[in-house]
Amino acid sequence: MTPSAPAYRRLSVEERRSQLLEAALTLFAHRAPEDISLDDVAEAAGVSRPLVYRYFPGGKQQLYEAALRSAADELEQCFDEPREGPLLIRLSRALDRYLAFVDEHDAGFSALLQGGSVVETSRTTAIVDGVRRAAAEHILSHLAVTGPGLRLRMTVRIWITAVEAASLIWLDEGKQPPVEELRDWLVEQFVAVLSVTANRDQQTAALVTALAADG
Amino acid sequence: MTPSAPAYRRLSVEERRSQLLEAALTLFAHRAPEDISLDDVAEAAGVSRPLVYRYFPGGKQQLYEAALRSAADELEQCFDEPREGPLLIRLSRALDRYLAFVDEHDAGFSALLQGGSVVETSRTTAIVDGVRRAAAEHILSHLAVTGPGLRLRMTVRIWITAVEAASLIWLDEGKQPPVEELRDWLVEQFVAVLSVTANRDQQTAALVTALAADG
Repeated sequence: MTPSAPAYRRLSVEERRSQLLEAALTLFAHRAPEDISLDDVAEAAGVSRPLVYRYFPGGKQQLYEAALRSAADELEQCFDEPREGPLLIRLSRALDRYLAFVDEHDAGFSALLQGGSVVETSRTTAIVDGVRRAAAEHILSHLAVTGPGLRLRMTVRIWITAVEAASLIWLDEGKQPPVEELRDWLVEQFVAVLSVTANRDQQTAALVTALAADG
Repeated sequence: MTPSAPAYRRLSVEERRSQLLEAALTLFAHRAPEDISLDDVAEAAGVSRPLVYRYFPGGKQQLYEAALRSAADELEQCFDEPREGPLLIRLSRALDRYLAFVDEHDAGFSALLQGGSVVETSRTTAIVDGVRRAAAEHILSHLAVTGPGLRLRMTVRIWITAVEAASLIWLDEGKQPPVEELRDWLVEQFVAVLSVTANRDQQTAALVTALAADG
């Protein structure tokens, strides 16, 4: 740092926005979204109220959607996994990142997913569905299946909802069992439900065989 | 019917209410809850608008919540199953009733569960959560486990969410695969995830052994 650098650096629009969303996410972790006002966010971020209102002129609904959008982007980044090494190891690593996100955002994660009593939930539902869809696409692309059929697609989508439910229940249960056990358990559930589907679907049967040989 | 019976019988308050909710549920099956007005319900039920407003003075939010409450009651009835015969047969029968409900209410079922852009979702979320909790309690009581531990409870709750997700995806996929296959598939998934949990939990292991001997 040069002596002429100002003690207080002006944040860029993007940096400021991230700072405010981060403050909002932290607040969501302790109170329901509908109980958080823009004033609370200003206080938590240590900035003036007019500044928060300038960034979110649409009020708390806009703030909520922006926070959800930002969480969704972060979640989708969890699914980024290099296409190398055994498939179940890749899945474990993605789950590690996902569960770390859940752990960090805690009640804020539940609040975001469950919406609270905020209007315009059809738009926020679309954001959450987008994350689920992205997760399913990532998994299917790692499984390297061309033209996944109905039963395989359903199995993957059902398991993704199961993971989501598991993480909400895990928060509800005071983060028990330990996160590493939860991760392994979810991977085992994935293999188990795929194996069940394999009994009714040739494509999935081939995949299960490949997975078993993959370790 | 005696000759003196009136051609038009006045409905009791409860009957009228049910009639209006049934009309609303049918409308929800084709349009999002937020697009349904009390006027639409009056028209569908063939009654006057003031009458609908008398029953739902709180407007469409009250109508929506009442419809959700009524659907929740119907769903909870699906879980009522005599405590006799093999456990997986009981589970199949309960699923048959549940899936018949999903089939009948179709898009209305998705709309109810996903809320749409209606305010006060925290109260409606509580109704939906109540159904999930009731389902979990029914299953645990049929499994006849005293003091179900964390891992068993989580497994049951995760599977219930999986069933819910499966039924939404099934609607999304044009009701494929056939409902009987979906039912059997879900029962098999139940056994599969229990078996996975059995590897990490003695209580569940004992249960899986009992289930296998139960047929």
